[in-house]
Amino acid sequence: MSNEITRTARTRLRRAHQRGAHDRETINAIVDAGVLCHVGYCVDGEPHVTPTFHWREGDRLYWHGSSASRMMREAAGATPVCVTVTHLDGLVMARSGFHHSVNYRSVMMFGRAREVTGDDAKVAALKAFMDRLWPGRWDEVRPPDARELKATAVVSMPIDEASAKIRTGPPNDDAEDYALTCWAGVVPVRTVAGEPEADPELAPGTPVPAYLGSLRFG
Amino acid sequence: MSNEITRTARTRLRRAHQRGAHDRETINAIVDAGVLCHVGYCVDGEPHVTPTFHWREGDRLYWHGSSASRMMREAAGATPVCVTVTHLDGLVMARSGFHHSVNYRSVMMFGRAREVTGDDAKVAALKAFMDRLWPGRWDEVRPPDARELKATAVVSMPIDEASAKIRTGPPNDDAEDYALTCWAGVVPVRTVAGEPEADPELAPGTPVPAYLGSLRFG
Repeated sequence: MSNEITRTARTRLRRAHQRGAHDRETINAIVDAGVLCHVGYCVDGEPHVTPTFHWREGDRLYWHGSSASRMMREAAGATPVCVTVTHLDGLVMARSGFHHSVNYRSVMMFGRAREVTGDDAKVAALKAFMDRLWPGRWDEVRPPDARELKATAVVSMPIDEASAKIRTGPPNDDAEDYALTCWAGVVPVRTVAGEPEADPELAPGTPVPAYLGSLRFG
Repeated sequence: MSNEITRTARTRLRRAHQRGAHDRETINAIVDAGVLCHVGYCVDGEPHVTPTFHWREGDRLYWHGSSASRMMREAAGATPVCVTVTHLDGLVMARSGFHHSVNYRSVMMFGRAREVTGDDAKVAALKAFMDRLWPGRWDEVRPPDARELKATAVVSMPIDEASAKIRTGPPNDDAEDYALTCWAGVVPVRTVAGEPEADPELAPGTPVPAYLGSLRFG
């Protein structure tokens, strides 16, 4: 299996080629750096874009949701989807309006999902999802019962038609604009976790688990 | 004009009604709190989801991009779009796997965009976009020339078919699960701006503009 994903009409970058990548390391790193994706699907030619959490196992992307949700029903029904993961890394402030830009990492993945069926497979997938966020937590919480598993849909999609786009670095101004005196540079943007807020119902003295400190966004 | 947006089949919430809102104050606040949206559109029944920056003027949503970008050409051509703005506010850690959740604010907006045409109207829209981020900066940077305006497409869409969804607060566990001893609560998540990084080409001593301090994300 090649590390480079075959390009298709949808994933070949038409513009700004230098920002593009099609190798699995780059794509996987962008996917894994985020928890939130946006799933797009079409119903009667009308687009819908739904935010949800995702995770990855090998070359497959997973997400889950309520079995009653339209997005999950469409995804489980193998409707074509586009799943996009975006990290906003900085605002690029140039010396002209035109050259203002954004530092970012994004991946667009196209394909058709399939439903994860069978309680054992579903539980394994949901455990992998939680392990990715908080290793060890799965064994501390109550596992899903049959009713909960029925209410939860899990789907996965091969990551085999995908492209990444990345911009980094300072503004690229026109040569003559460097003589202008306005401030130019990058305002970095990052997503961070704050101090954990205990549930008001939590028994006093319950320790904050160590795995909470390992979660990173972006 | 009512403050409540008329619900349609696409914006009526089928599940979790208590999380939904259709009033303009709520929708506008969520839209304005973010700079990044995801624009979905369909081409031959295949969905595409493209991240881009947005801004709002009154009851209209704006975004811009390269005139050569497929997303902008589709949007300018009045293809139906779905624009989603999502803020991730926290990870909700419950005592059962099933009740883990996410605190978030999101808006889905459906409609057809139209292109902003005419250089004056385009410049006014792009100035409004920059004013929203950094009031006063527009007058400090070089304005767009004719070639740059031609290369930039701006579109806008009425915000008249839209819904908001919001979750806040601690986990909602099943009554019997409150006896479990695992940690439960919320890990707040926020998007923040870091210290501005001056362009390496910037003249030493160029002051950091005060408007950089006013930008908020989420």
